Amino acid sequence: MALKRPKGTFDLLPPGSPGLEKHNAMNRHQLVLEQVRETLERAGAKFIQTPLFEALELVKRGVGETTDVVQKEMYSVSHRGSDEGFVLRPEGTAPIVRAYLENGLKQFPAPLKLWTYGPMFRAERQQEGRYRQFHQVDYEVLGSDDPLTDAEAIVLMWQVLERVGLKNLEMKVSSLGDPPDREAYSTYLREVFAPHLERLSPLSLSRLERNPLRILDSKEAQDIALIAQLSPKSLLESLGESAKVHLDRVCAYLTAWGVTYALDPGIVRGLDYYRRTAWEVHHTGVGAKAALGGGGRYDGLAELLGGPPTPGVGWALGVERILIALEAEAVPAPALVGPLLYLGALEEGLLENVTGLALELRRSASCEFGYRAKKPGKHLEDAVKKGAVFLGLIGPDEADTGTLSLKNLERGEGWVLPRAELPEYLRNYLSSH
Amino acid sequence: MALKRPKGTFDLLPPGSPGLEKHNAMNRHQLVLEQVRETLERAGAKFIQTPLFEALELVKRGVGETTDVVQKEMYSVSHRGSDEGFVLRPEGTAPIVRAYLENGLKQFPAPLKLWTYGPMFRAERQQEGRYRQFHQVDYEVLGSDDPLTDAEAIVLMWQVLERVGLKNLEMKVSSLGDPPDREAYSTYLREVFAPHLERLSPLSLSRLERNPLRILDSKEAQDIALIAQLSPKSLLESLGESAKVHLDRVCAYLTAWGVTYALDPGIVRGLDYYRRTAWEVHHTGVGAKAALGGGGRYDGLAELLGGPPTPGVGWALGVERILIALEAEAVPAPALVGPLLYLGALEEGLLENVTGLALELRRSASCEFGYRAKKPGKHLEDAVKKGAVFLGLIGPDEADTGTLSLKNLERGEGWVLPRAELPEYLRNYLSSH
Repeated sequence: MALKRPKGTFDLLPPGSPGLEKHNAMNRHQLVLEQVRETLERAGAKFIQTPLFEALELVKRGVGETTDVVQKEMYSVSHRGSDEGFVLRPEGTAPIVRAYLENGLKQFPAPLKLWTYGPMFRAERQQEGRYRQFHQVDYEVLGSDDPLTDAEAIVLMWQVLERVGLKNLEMKVSSLGDPPDREAYSTYLREVFAPHLERLSPLSLSRLERNPLRILDSKEAQDIALIAQLSPKSLLESLGESAKVHLDRVCAYLTAWGVTYALDPGIVRGLDYYRRTAWEVHHTGVGAKAALGGGGRYDGLAELLGGPPTPGVGWALGVERILIALEAEAVPAPALVGPLLYLGALEEGLLENVTGLALELRRSASCEFGYRAKKPGKHLEDAVKKGAVFLGLIGPDEADTGTLSLKNLERGEGWVLPRAELPEYLRNYLSSH
Repeated sequence: MALKRPKGTFDLLPPGSPGLEKHNAMNRHQLVLEQVRETLERAGAKFIQTPLFEALELVKRGVGETTDVVQKEMYSVSHRGSDEGFVLRPEGTAPIVRAYLENGLKQFPAPLKLWTYGPMFRAERQQEGRYRQFHQVDYEVLGSDDPLTDAEAIVLMWQVLERVGLKNLEMKVSSLGDPPDREAYSTYLREVFAPHLERLSPLSLSRLERNPLRILDSKEAQDIALIAQLSPKSLLESLGESAKVHLDRVCAYLTAWGVTYALDPGIVRGLDYYRRTAWEVHHTGVGAKAALGGGGRYDGLAELLGGPPTPGVGWALGVERILIALEAEAVPAPALVGPLLYLGALEEGLLENVTGLALELRRSASCEFGYRAKKPGKHLEDAVKKGAVFLGLIGPDEADTGTLSLKNLERGEGWVLPRAELPEYLRNYLSSH
């Protein structure tokens, strides 16, 4: 039996492959990536790449020991049976902050804007839009707690999504407050739930002491009913003065720049190091609950990883989610580009001649050739299949006179050209098309 | 204590980072990758990307159960303590052939040229130029046994290395023959060693029955001495007629194209599915024994993976090896590029104005800004540090009149420009520089 790829993973395939789906077309994936790169690098973000596996301890601190990701979805990486505590990375923020601290990147003028792209790994149950190896773009700004860095992060995420061609987007912004705000709000929540403990689900009950905010995120029907009945005030309504001023500044920038957003108290981050701004972008094409991505401020993270206090804010976008949204909006896929020239030999003895010319032309243009000598009509067929712009044929006459028979396949015109003139002819064609 | 990356891995860092070494400069890594992409895609190769982990069984068949890679250097990937037999991929050929078979890529006109780039993983002992996560470029051609595909693969590898700027290269070409040739040669080797079994190392003795060719690759002093004394004829001198004709054709193409190469019988591939052409490229800067990369024909691999007979030929190049060779040849690193424009506000109240302009300009050019209002001299300092071409300042006068004070930092000239004219001014600058 033929060997298969691991369940829940996929191959990114060239255009024209059989069985292409929404998420695995390489040309679409790469176009998105180029558009992301252009948008982020024009804003001064520098590309960084961290290893694909990291210490489990880093992920525990960066994602949270009590999360599903750490408790259920981690892939362990071991060598010769000895588990040294490495895992495939499930997200990009903690590794980038680790890299910032470990490599002394605070020597750059602050704020330092970094971005990365690459595979992330989570052993999730399989469903549409969720893969065990998926791809994310991350943008992280380190070294500043200025609300302008939050607002710029949000607008860059927005511009990335506009640049790839999406329209039906919803930007939801909130604030998680400062640590004292959250402490006070946690106390408030415990008081609200205290008279109704028997109606909470076991999971929510277990979270009441340590992390009551996550109860608001519960998917259990009994919790949802209780919360609807008690309708506690939101954290967003309970911000302290400095978190409120920060959020107001972020909103003022977004408004000044014409970004459409909605304040949404429902955006919760369960981890202690998150504070102040948090946001998500939703798209109707990806399903009711699924965000294209989200971001937030994480001023407490660097200290948790063993570094000095380092404010930071950033976001992640799922590439496969974007691809599914693009298909839902019927955004056209990038045009397929064939070679500029397809060369064919009319006799086997001319193959060295033809391939030598192809190698020379490839210094400045794309050029493919037929691997065997064929009749002109057969070469024409192959050239059209490849999507070539020009077909060049070399038979004994052309070889003797140092020429080739050139045909413009778009316009149907053909003529004989000295070989020496071909490179310049193609250069001129390229610069005028 | 601050958390660290796993031993033997590295972060790819932006230019200007402290502690940059030969192998981890992102700008150099990316430039090599762009040059590779251009060279291979002009030749019609299509980019493909397979998952980072695969079935151990695939690696065993693709790399060989008795190799060091499989026996000592594999990273196992498991989920919640249950080992389902996945490993981080140590090389790219077997996964690409697996993807070709699994996704029905034989429907493309043959030969299909594919390439990939990405991380590979081997738990090797640490030494210069060897990393546990390293990066490779792979080029694979499937569906043809034409010697022209071998020769084109070799010349493409050569052109990639020339394109990145390397000069001190040695291309070593050999042939491993067809399966009957290797069987006959194995028998010959067993006969040569038979009277001297007591002088072979234990490892070589254990290989005598199953894979006597690998004895020629031994690093044990006693084997090397014995081989020198017996000086058996090489496999290259023992080729059958059809393998010989194939090699002659490959060499004829290389000669016709002006590629400098040497026939080298010392190039051995220990695996059964390799046949006919095999080659390596060496560089004096990477150390005596280390190749930049190598390739070969592997017509037997697809069947080993459970597919129909599918001839193939391909190669892999190590990106970090290339970077070390570039440094050894003192090839200049790519020039650092700062933003086209750096914008500064002279008063805090003008930040929304300035950042709004920056967002507009980023639609067509790179533009950074100061996050706080500063005096002109301070903004100038920051703009120079960033390597900006232009500095634009907006104070109350400029805000009132809808202008900005622009300065060309390369030429030292300054003038006042209406904001509405700025996008076109920058576009003109970009198209003429």
